[in-house]
Amino acid sequence: MRLEILPLPVPGEIETGADLAGLLLGAAPPLERGDVVVVSHKAVSKAEGRVADLREVTPSAQAIELARPDGDPRLAEMVLRESRRIVRRRGSLLIAETHHGFICASAGIDRSNAPGAEKVVLLPVDPDASAGALRAELERRSAVPLAVVVADTMGRPLRNGIVGTAIGVSGLEPLRGYHGQADAAGYTLRTTQVAVADELAAAADLVLGKLERVPAALVRGYPAAGEGTARELIRESQRDLFI
Amino acid sequence: MRLEILPLPVPGEIETGADLAGLLLGAAPPLERGDVVVVSHKAVSKAEGRVADLREVTPSAQAIELARPDGDPRLAEMVLRESRRIVRRRGSLLIAETHHGFICASAGIDRSNAPGAEKVVLLPVDPDASAGALRAELERRSAVPLAVVVADTMGRPLRNGIVGTAIGVSGLEPLRGYHGQADAAGYTLRTTQVAVADELAAAADLVLGKLERVPAALVRGYPAAGEGTARELIRESQRDLFI
Repeated sequence: MRLEILPLPVPGEIETGADLAGLLLGAAPPLERGDVVVVSHKAVSKAEGRVADLREVTPSAQAIELARPDGDPRLAEMVLRESRRIVRRRGSLLIAETHHGFICASAGIDRSNAPGAEKVVLLPVDPDASAGALRAELERRSAVPLAVVVADTMGRPLRNGIVGTAIGVSGLEPLRGYHGQADAAGYTLRTTQVAVADELAAAADLVLGKLERVPAALVRGYPAAGEGTARELIRESQRDLFI
Repeated sequence: MRLEILPLPVPGEIETGADLAGLLLGAAPPLERGDVVVVSHKAVSKAEGRVADLREVTPSAQAIELARPDGDPRLAEMVLRESRRIVRRRGSLLIAETHHGFICASAGIDRSNAPGAEKVVLLPVDPDASAGALRAELERRSAVPLAVVVADTMGRPLRNGIVGTAIGVSGLEPLRGYHGQADAAGYTLRTTQVAVADELAAAADLVLGKLERVPAALVRGYPAAGEGTARELIRESQRDLFI
Protein backbone atom coordinates (compact mmCIF):
# COMPACT_ATOMS: atom_id res chain seq x y z
CA MET A 1 0.00 0.00 0.00
CA ARG A 2 1.37 3.34 -1.12
CA LEU A 3 -0.21 6.63 -0.11
CA GLU A 4 -0.30 10.00 -1.77
CA ILE A 5 -1.34 13.11 0.12
CA LEU A 6 -2.31 16.06 -2.06
CA PRO A 7 -3.09 19.55 -0.75
CA LEU A 8 -6.42 21.02 -1.89
CA PRO A 9 -5.93 24.80 -1.93
CA VAL A 10 -8.98 27.02 -2.12
CA PRO A 11 -8.85 30.61 -3.36
CA GLY A 12 -10.23 33.32 -1.11
CA GLU A 13 -12.17 33.20 2.13
CA ILE A 14 -14.82 30.52 2.74
CA GLU A 15 -18.11 32.29 3.48
CA THR A 16 -21.26 31.07 5.19
CA GLY A 17 -23.20 28.97 2.70
CA ALA A 18 -20.15 28.36 0.50
CA ASP A 19 -20.27 25.33 -1.77
CA LEU A 20 -17.47 23.50 0.04
CA ALA A 21 -17.83 20.33 -2.06
CA GLY A 22 -17.51 22.42 -5.21
CA LEU A 23 -14.46 24.26 -3.92
CA LEU A 24 -12.72 21.00 -3.00
CA LEU A 25 -13.62 19.29 -6.28
CA GLY A 26 -12.21 22.33 -8.07
CA ALA A 27 -8.90 21.86 -6.27
CA ALA A 28 -8.64 18.07 -6.61
CA PRO A 29 -7.75 15.76 -9.48
CA PRO A 30 -10.64 13.52 -10.60
CA LEU A 31 -11.62 11.60 -7.46
CA GLU A 32 -11.14 7.85 -7.34
CA ARG A 33 -12.97 5.12 -5.44
CA GLY A 34 -11.81 5.04 -1.84
CA ASP A 35 -10.18 8.48 -1.78
CA VAL A 36 -10.25 10.09 1.66
CA VAL A 37 -10.88 13.84 1.79
CA VAL A 38 -9.56 15.31 5.03
CA VAL A 39 -10.97 18.77 5.61
CA SER A 40 -10.12 21.25 8.33
CA HIS A 41 -13.04 21.86 10.66
CA LYS A 42 -12.50 25.56 10.10
CA ALA A 43 -13.53 25.30 6.46
CA VAL A 44 -16.58 23.27 7.47
CA SER A 45 -17.52 25.63 10.29
CA LYS A 46 -17.18 28.72 8.12
CA ALA A 47 -19.34 27.19 5.38
CA GLU A 48 -21.90 26.22 8.04
CA GLY A 49 -21.90 29.70 9.54
CA ARG A 50 -20.40 28.53 12.84
CA VAL A 51 -18.63 31.86 13.31
CA ALA A 52 -19.26 34.23 16.21
CA ASP A 53 -18.62 37.96 16.36
CA LEU A 54 -17.08 38.81 19.72
CA ARG A 55 -18.47 42.35 19.50
CA GLU A 56 -21.94 40.84 19.90
CA VAL A 57 -21.04 38.71 22.95
CA THR A 58 -21.90 39.93 26.44
CA PRO A 59 -19.74 38.09 28.96
CA SER A 60 -21.33 36.69 32.10
CA ALA A 61 -19.81 37.24 35.54
CA GLN A 62 -18.35 33.71 35.36
CA ALA A 63 -16.72 34.49 32.01
CA ILE A 64 -15.23 37.72 33.36
CA GLU A 65 -13.77 35.76 36.27
CA LEU A 66 -12.41 32.97 34.02
CA ALA A 67 -10.71 35.48 31.73
CA ARG A 68 -8.54 36.93 34.51
CA PRO A 69 -5.83 38.12 34.42
CA ASP A 70 -5.22 38.79 30.74
CA GLY A 71 -7.83 36.95 28.69
CA ASP A 72 -10.80 38.17 26.70
CA PRO A 73 -14.04 37.77 28.71
CA ARG A 74 -16.03 37.54 25.48
CA LEU A 75 -13.94 34.56 24.37
CA ALA A 76 -14.35 32.96 27.82
CA GLU A 77 -18.10 33.43 27.43
CA MET A 78 -18.04 31.60 24.11
CA VAL A 79 -15.97 28.79 25.66
CA LEU A 80 -18.62 28.43 28.37
CA ARG A 81 -21.41 28.30 25.80
CA GLU A 82 -19.60 25.66 23.74
CA SER A 83 -18.73 23.37 26.69
CA ARG A 84 -20.13 20.91 29.14
CA ARG A 85 -17.48 21.81 31.67
CA ILE A 86 -14.17 23.57 32.19
CA VAL A 87 -11.57 20.86 32.75
CA ARG A 88 -8.50 22.98 33.57
CA ARG A 89 -7.41 26.56 33.66
CA ARG A 90 -3.98 28.13 33.53
CA GLY A 91 -4.13 31.87 33.63
CA SER A 92 -6.73 32.75 31.05
CA LEU A 93 -6.16 29.59 28.99
CA LEU A 94 -9.11 27.25 29.39
CA ILE A 95 -9.22 23.53 28.64
CA ALA A 96 -12.85 22.53 28.20
CA GLU A 97 -14.94 19.48 27.40
CA THR A 98 -17.13 20.42 24.46
CA HIS A 99 -20.75 19.38 24.09
CA HIS A 100 -19.50 16.64 21.75
CA GLY A 101 -17.13 15.29 24.44
CA PHE A 102 -13.83 16.52 23.01
CA ILE A 103 -11.39 17.88 25.58
CA CYS A 104 -9.47 20.73 24.03
CA ALA A 105 -8.11 24.24 24.47
CA SER A 106 -10.80 26.97 24.37
CA ALA A 107 -13.46 24.34 23.52
CA GLY A 108 -11.98 24.20 20.03
CA ILE A 109 -12.75 27.87 19.39
CA ASP A 110 -10.20 29.40 17.09
CA ARG A 111 -9.27 32.98 16.52
CA SER A 112 -6.60 32.38 13.89
CA ASN A 113 -7.76 32.15 10.27
CA ALA A 114 -11.05 33.64 11.41
CA PRO A 115 -12.66 36.17 9.08
CA GLY A 116 -11.82 39.41 10.90
CA ALA A 117 -9.97 39.95 14.13
CA GLU A 118 -13.14 40.08 16.23
CA LYS A 119 -14.56 36.89 14.79
CA VAL A 120 -13.96 33.38 16.10
CA VAL A 121 -14.63 30.01 14.49
CA LEU A 122 -16.52 27.42 16.55
CA LEU A 123 -16.51 23.64 16.06
CA PRO A 124 -19.32 22.24 13.89
CA VAL A 125 -22.42 21.33 15.91
CA ASP A 126 -22.22 17.70 14.73
CA PRO A 127 -18.91 17.00 12.94
CA ASP A 128 -19.92 13.44 11.98
CA ALA A 129 -23.04 14.82 10.30
CA SER A 130 -20.91 17.49 8.60
CA ALA A 131 -18.59 14.77 7.30
CA GLY A 132 -21.58 12.75 6.09
CA ALA A 133 -23.17 15.70 4.28
CA LEU A 134 -19.91 16.68 2.59
CA ARG A 135 -19.27 13.07 1.59
CA ALA A 136 -22.78 12.72 0.13
CA GLU A 137 -22.30 15.85 -1.95
CA LEU A 138 -18.80 14.83 -3.12
CA GLU A 139 -20.05 11.35 -4.02
CA ARG A 140 -23.09 12.73 -5.85
CA ARG A 141 -20.92 14.93 -8.06
CA SER A 142 -17.98 12.55 -8.55
CA ALA A 143 -19.98 9.30 -8.69
CA VAL A 144 -17.37 7.33 -6.72
CA PRO A 145 -17.52 6.06 -3.12
CA LEU A 146 -15.39 8.23 -0.83
CA ALA A 147 -14.60 8.86 2.81
CA VAL A 148 -14.44 12.21 4.60
CA VAL A 149 -12.59 13.13 7.79
CA VAL A 150 -13.24 16.47 9.50
CA ALA A 151 -10.03 17.35 11.34
CA ASP A 152 -8.85 19.75 13.99
CA THR A 153 -5.38 20.21 15.44
CA MET A 154 -5.45 19.44 19.13
CA GLY A 155 -3.11 19.52 22.07
CA ARG A 156 -2.63 16.30 24.00
CA PRO A 157 -1.91 15.24 27.53
CA LEU A 158 1.69 14.07 28.09
CA ARG A 159 3.01 15.29 24.72
CA ASN A 160 4.03 18.73 23.49
CA GLY A 161 2.65 20.17 20.29
CA ILE A 162 -0.68 19.91 18.54
CA VAL A 163 -1.49 17.19 15.99
CA GLY A 164 -4.18 16.68 13.39
CA THR A 165 -7.08 14.79 15.00
CA ALA A 166 -10.36 13.44 13.62
CA ILE A 167 -13.50 15.07 15.02
CA GLY A 168 -15.92 13.82 12.36
CA VAL A 169 -15.84 10.89 9.92
CA SER A 170 -17.98 9.33 7.23
CA GLY A 171 -17.29 6.31 5.06
CA LEU A 172 -14.65 4.65 7.21
CA GLU A 173 -14.15 2.84 10.46
CA PRO A 174 -12.17 5.23 12.68
CA LEU A 175 -10.73 2.33 14.69
CA ARG A 176 -9.17 -0.55 12.82
CA GLY A 177 -9.01 -3.69 14.88
CA TYR A 178 -6.50 -6.49 14.73
CA HIS A 179 -8.22 -8.49 17.42
CA GLY A 180 -7.56 -12.18 17.14
CA GLN A 181 -5.44 -12.00 13.99
CA ALA A 182 -2.03 -13.65 13.94
CA ASP A 183 1.09 -11.60 13.22
CA ALA A 184 3.99 -12.76 11.05
CA ALA A 185 5.52 -14.63 14.00
CA GLY A 186 2.25 -16.44 14.74
CA TYR A 187 1.50 -14.46 17.90
CA THR A 188 -2.17 -13.54 18.21
CA LEU A 189 -2.68 -9.80 18.60
CA ARG A 190 -5.08 -9.45 21.45
CA THR A 191 -6.65 -6.04 21.65
CA THR A 192 -4.86 -3.79 19.21
CA GLN A 193 -7.08 -1.10 17.74
CA VAL A 194 -5.44 1.53 15.61
CA ALA A 195 -7.06 4.97 15.47
CA VAL A 196 -6.70 5.24 11.70
CA ALA A 197 -8.97 8.29 11.44
CA ASP A 198 -6.60 10.18 13.73
CA GLU A 199 -3.63 8.94 11.70
CA LEU A 200 -5.30 10.14 8.49
CA ALA A 201 -5.95 13.54 10.09
CA ALA A 202 -2.33 13.75 11.28
CA ALA A 203 -1.00 12.74 7.86
CA ALA A 204 -3.15 15.34 6.11
CA ASP A 205 -2.13 18.04 8.58
CA LEU A 206 1.43 17.80 7.22
CA VAL A 207 0.20 19.42 3.99
CA LEU A 208 -2.56 21.63 5.36
CA GLY A 209 -1.55 25.24 5.46
CA LYS A 210 -1.51 27.00 8.78
CA LEU A 211 -0.51 30.20 7.05
CA GLU A 212 -1.84 29.68 3.54
CA ARG A 213 -5.29 28.77 2.35
CA VAL A 214 -5.10 24.98 2.16
CA PRO A 215 -8.15 23.80 4.11
CA ALA A 216 -8.15 20.19 2.92
CA ALA A 217 -6.04 17.34 1.63
CA LEU A 218 -6.75 14.27 -0.44
CA VAL A 219 -5.36 10.95 0.83
CA ARG A 220 -5.17 8.44 -2.00
CA GLY A 221 -4.28 4.77 -1.58
CA TYR A 222 -5.72 4.12 1.88
CA PRO A 223 -8.36 1.39 1.72
CA ALA A 224 -11.15 3.32 3.45
CA ALA A 225 -14.24 1.24 4.14
CA GLY A 226 -17.02 0.82 6.63
CA GLU A 227 -19.15 3.21 8.59
CA GLY A 228 -18.25 4.71 11.93
CA THR A 229 -18.32 7.94 13.88
CA ALA A 230 -15.59 10.05 15.44
CA ARG A 231 -17.40 9.70 18.76
CA GLU A 232 -15.97 6.17 18.90
CA LEU A 233 -12.56 7.80 19.31
CA ILE A 234 -13.53 9.53 22.54
CA ARG A 235 -12.46 7.56 25.59
CA GLU A 236 -14.74 8.17 28.51
CA SER A 237 -12.84 9.40 31.56
CA GLN A 238 -13.99 6.58 33.80
CA ARG A 239 -12.46 4.13 31.34
CA ASP A 240 -9.22 6.06 31.02
CA LEU A 241 -6.12 4.30 32.23
CA PHE A 242 -3.80 7.25 31.89
CA ILE A 243 -5.51 9.93 33.94
CA MET B 1 3.56 20.35 -0.94
CA ARG B 2 2.59 16.83 -1.96
CA LEU B 3 3.59 13.79 0.07
CA GLU B 4 4.20 10.21 -0.92
CA ILE B 5 4.39 7.45 1.67
CA LEU B 6 5.99 4.23 0.49
CA PRO B 7 6.14 1.02 2.50
CA LEU B 8 9.61 -0.50 2.90
CA PRO B 9 9.05 -4.27 3.25
CA VAL B 10 11.90 -6.39 4.54
CA PRO B 11 12.13 -10.12 3.90
CA GLY B 12 12.53 -12.43 6.87
CA GLU B 13 13.12 -11.76 10.53
CA ILE B 14 15.43 -8.94 11.68
CA GLU B 15 18.16 -10.49 13.83
CA THR B 16 20.50 -8.93 16.37
CA GLY B 17 23.29 -7.19 14.50
CA ALA B 18 21.26 -7.00 11.27
CA ASP B 19 22.30 -4.35 8.76
CA LEU B 20 19.10 -2.34 9.11
CA ALA B 21 20.31 0.47 6.84
CA GLY B 22 21.10 -2.07 4.14
CA LEU B 23 17.73 -3.79 4.49
CA LEU B 24 15.87 -0.47 4.20
CA LEU B 25 17.96 0.73 1.25
CA GLY B 26 17.23 -2.58 -0.45
CA ALA B 27 13.49 -1.93 -0.09
CA ALA B 28 13.49 1.76 -1.06
CA PRO B 29 13.78 3.57 -4.38
CA PRO B 30 16.95 5.68 -4.69
CA LEU B 31 16.77 8.09 -1.75
CA GLU B 32 16.38 11.80 -2.39
CA ARG B 33 17.48 14.83 -0.40
CA GLY B 34 15.07 15.43 2.48
CA ASP B 35 13.43 12.00 2.47
CA VAL B 36 12.19 10.93 5.89
CA VAL B 37 12.62 7.27 6.82
CA VAL B 38 10.15 6.28 9.53
CA VAL B 39 11.14 3.00 11.11
CA SER B 40 9.28 0.92 13.66
CA HIS B 41 11.11 0.77 16.97
CA LYS B 42 10.70 -2.99 16.81
CA ALA B 43 13.02 -3.25 13.81
CA VAL B 44 15.55 -1.00 15.56
CA SER B 45 15.30 -2.88 18.86
CA LYS B 46 15.69 -6.26 17.21
CA ALA B 47 18.76 -5.12 15.25
CA GLU B 48 20.19 -3.67 18.48
CA GLY B 49 19.53 -6.88 20.40
CA ARG B 50 16.96 -5.28 22.69
CA VAL B 51 15.04 -8.54 22.98
CA ALA B 52 14.51 -10.42 26.23
CA ASP B 53 13.74 -14.10 26.70
CA LEU B 54 11.03 -14.47 29.33
CA ARG B 55 12.33 -17.97 30.17
CA GLU B 56 15.43 -16.30 31.58
CA VAL B 57 13.55 -13.76 33.73
CA THR B 58 13.03 -14.42 37.43
CA PRO B 59 10.13 -12.29 38.67
CA SER B 60 10.49 -10.37 41.92
CA ALA B 61 7.80 -10.44 44.61
CA GLN B 62 6.62 -7.03 43.36
CA ALA B 63 6.31 -8.35 39.81
CA ILE B 64 4.32 -11.37 40.99
CA GLU B 65 1.97 -9.04 42.83
CA LEU B 66 1.61 -6.66 39.83
CA ALA B 67 0.79 -9.55 37.48
CA ARG B 68 -2.28 -10.60 39.46
CA PRO B 69 -4.82 -11.85 38.56
CA ASP B 70 -4.06 -13.12 35.05
CA GLY B 71 -0.81 -11.54 33.88
CA ASP B 72 2.65 -12.96 33.33
CA PRO B 73 4.93 -12.17 36.31
CA ARG B 74 7.98 -12.36 34.04
CA LEU B 75 6.53 -9.66 31.79
CA ALA B 76 5.69 -7.54 34.85
CA GLU B 77 9.31 -7.96 35.96
CA MET B 78 10.54 -6.65 32.61
CA VAL B 79 8.11 -3.70 32.84
CA LEU B 80 9.59 -2.87 36.26
CA ARG B 81 13.14 -3.04 34.91
CA GLU B 82 12.29 -0.81 31.95
CA SER B 83 10.46 1.87 33.98
CA ARG B 84 10.93 4.72 36.38
CA ARG B 85 7.51 4.14 37.86
CA ILE B 86 4.19 2.39 37.38
CA VAL B 87 1.63 5.07 36.53
CA ARG B 88 -1.57 3.03 36.48
CA ARG B 89 -2.72 -0.52 36.68
CA ARG B 90 -5.91 -2.21 35.56
CA GLY B 91 -5.94 -5.88 36.28
CA SER B 92 -2.59 -7.06 35.02
CA LEU B 93 -2.27 -4.28 32.41
CA LEU B 94 0.41 -1.82 33.52
CA ILE B 95 0.90 1.75 32.30
CA ALA B 96 4.48 2.76 33.09
CA GLU B 97 6.79 5.72 32.66
CA THR B 98 9.88 4.41 30.89
CA HIS B 99 13.41 5.50 31.74
CA HIS B 100 13.17 7.81 28.69
CA GLY B 101 10.03 9.48 30.10
CA PHE B 102 7.45 7.94 27.76
CA ILE B 103 4.20 6.92 29.44
CA CYS B 104 2.90 3.82 27.73
CA ALA B 105 1.37 0.39 28.17
CA SER B 106 3.83 -2.25 29.48
CA ALA B 107 6.70 0.29 29.29
CA GLY B 108 6.62 -0.14 25.51
CA ILE B 109 7.45 -3.85 25.77
CA ASP B 110 5.88 -5.78 22.97
CA ARG B 111 5.12 -9.45 22.64
CA SER B 112 3.62 -9.31 19.14
CA ASN B 113 6.03 -9.63 16.23
CA ALA B 114 8.63 -10.82 18.71
CA PRO B 115 10.92 -13.63 17.56
CA GLY B 116 9.39 -16.58 19.39
CA ALA B 117 6.44 -16.66 21.75
CA GLU B 118 8.62 -16.37 24.87
CA LYS B 119 10.58 -13.39 23.59
CA VAL B 120 9.63 -9.75 24.04
CA VAL B 121 10.93 -6.66 22.30
CA LEU B 122 12.02 -3.72 24.50
CA LEU B 123 12.28 -0.06 23.46
CA PRO B 124 15.74 1.06 22.29
CA VAL B 125 17.91 2.35 25.14
CA ASP B 126 18.26 5.75 23.43
CA PRO B 127 15.87 6.08 20.48
CA ASP B 128 17.26 9.49 19.43
CA ALA B 129 20.73 7.96 19.25
CA SER B 130 19.31 4.99 17.31
CA ALA B 131 17.71 7.43 14.84
CA GLY B 132 21.01 9.31 14.53
CA ALA B 133 23.05 6.17 13.91
CA LEU B 134 20.63 4.84 11.30
CA ARG B 135 20.50 8.24 9.60
CA ALA B 136 24.31 8.48 9.49
CA GLU B 137 24.53 5.05 7.89
CA LEU B 138 21.75 5.77 5.38
CA GLU B 139 23.35 9.12 4.47
CA ARG B 140 26.80 7.58 4.12
CA ARG B 141 25.55 4.98 1.64
CA SER B 142 23.05 7.17 -0.26
CA ALA B 143 25.07 10.42 -0.15
CA VAL B 144 21.98 12.59 0.40
CA PRO B 145 20.82 14.39 3.57
CA LEU B 146 17.93 12.54 5.21
CA ALA B 147 15.85 12.45 8.36
CA VAL B 148 14.93 9.42 10.46
CA VAL B 149 12.02 8.94 12.84
CA VAL B 150 11.90 5.91 15.16
CA ALA B 151 8.21 5.24 15.80
CA ASP B 152 6.06 3.24 18.16
CA THR B 153 2.29 2.89 18.28
CA MET B 154 1.02 4.22 21.58
CA GLY B 155 -2.23 4.53 23.42
CA ARG B 156 -3.31 7.96 24.55
CA PRO B 157 -5.25 9.56 27.34
CA LEU B 158 -8.76 10.69 26.34
CA ARG B 159 -8.78 8.93 22.96
CA ASN B 160 -9.39 5.31 21.98
CA GLY B 161 -6.95 3.44 19.77
CA ILE B 162 -3.22 3.54 19.35
CA VAL B 163 -1.44 5.86 16.90
CA GLY B 164 2.03 6.05 15.41
CA THR B 165 4.18 8.24 17.69
CA ALA B 166 7.78 9.47 17.42
CA ILE B 167 10.14 8.16 20.11
CA GLY B 168 13.40 9.06 18.36
CA VAL B 169 14.30 11.57 15.65
CA SER B 170 17.33 12.76 13.74
CA GLY B 171 17.58 15.40 11.03
CA LEU B 172 14.40 17.28 11.78
CA GLU B 173 12.78 19.56 14.30
CA PRO B 174 10.04 17.47 15.97
CA LEU B 175 8.06 20.61 16.85
CA ARG B 176 7.37 23.12 14.11
CA GLY B 177 6.55 26.54 15.46
CA TYR B 178 4.36 29.21 13.98
CA HIS B 179 5.03 31.65 16.77
CA GLY B 180 4.59 35.24 15.73
CA GLN B 181 3.77 34.52 12.09
CA ALA B 182 0.68 36.04 10.53
CA ASP B 183 -2.00 33.81 9.03
CA ALA B 184 -3.88 34.53 5.78
CA ALA B 185 -6.32 36.79 7.65
CA GLY B 186 -3.50 38.78 9.27
CA TYR B 187 -4.03 37.35 12.74
CA THR B 188 -0.76 36.59 14.53
CA LEU B 189 -0.55 32.94 15.64
CA ARG B 190 0.64 33.10 19.19
CA THR B 191 1.93 29.82 20.46
CA THR B 192 1.11 27.18 17.89
CA GLN B 193 3.64 24.37 17.79
CA VAL B 194 2.82 21.39 15.62
CA ALA B 195 4.29 18.02 16.63
CA VAL B 196 5.31 17.17 13.06
CA ALA B 197 7.45 14.19 14.12
CA ASP B 198 4.34 12.58 15.64
CA GLU B 199 2.36 13.43 12.50
CA LEU B 200 5.05 11.78 10.35
CA ALA B 201 4.97 8.70 12.58
CA ALA B 202 1.17 8.57 12.37
CA ALA B 203 1.22 9.00 8.59
CA ALA B 204 3.79 6.23 8.18
CA ASP B 205 1.85 3.91 10.47
CA LEU B 206 -0.94 3.84 7.88
CA VAL B 207 1.35 1.79 5.60
CA LEU B 208 3.35 -0.12 8.22
CA GLY B 209 2.27 -3.71 8.49
CA LYS B 210 0.95 -4.96 11.81
CA LEU B 211 0.54 -8.40 10.32
CA GLU B 212 3.10 -8.38 7.50
CA ARG B 213 6.77 -7.57 7.55
CA VAL B 214 6.77 -3.85 6.72
CA PRO B 215 8.93 -2.30 9.45
CA ALA B 216 9.47 1.09 7.81
CA ALA B 217 8.07 3.67 5.43
CA LEU B 218 9.58 6.40 3.32
CA VAL B 219 7.91 9.82 3.46
CA ARG B 220 8.85 11.86 0.41
CA GLY B 221 7.96 15.52 -0.07
CA TYR B 222 8.06 16.73 3.53
CA PRO B 223 10.67 19.47 3.93
CA ALA B 224 12.56 17.91 6.84
CA ALA B 225 15.23 20.17 8.28
CA GLY B 226 16.92 21.06 11.55
CA GLU B 227 18.10 19.03 14.48
CA GLY B 228 16.01 18.06 17.43
CA THR B 229 15.24 15.16 19.74
CA ALA B 230 12.07 13.25 20.49
CA ARG B 231 12.54 14.15 24.14
CA GLU B 232 11.26 17.61 23.21
CA LEU B 233 7.90 15.97 22.58
CA ILE B 234 7.56 14.78 26.18
CA ARG B 235 5.52 17.16 28.28
CA GLU B 236 6.53 17.06 31.88
CA SER B 237 3.62 16.24 34.15
CA GLN B 238 3.94 19.40 36.20
CA ARG B 239 3.49 21.42 33.04
CA ASP B 240 0.54 19.39 31.85
CA LEU B 241 -2.73 21.19 31.54
CA PHE B 242 -4.85 18.17 30.80
CA ILE B 243 -4.11 15.85 33.70
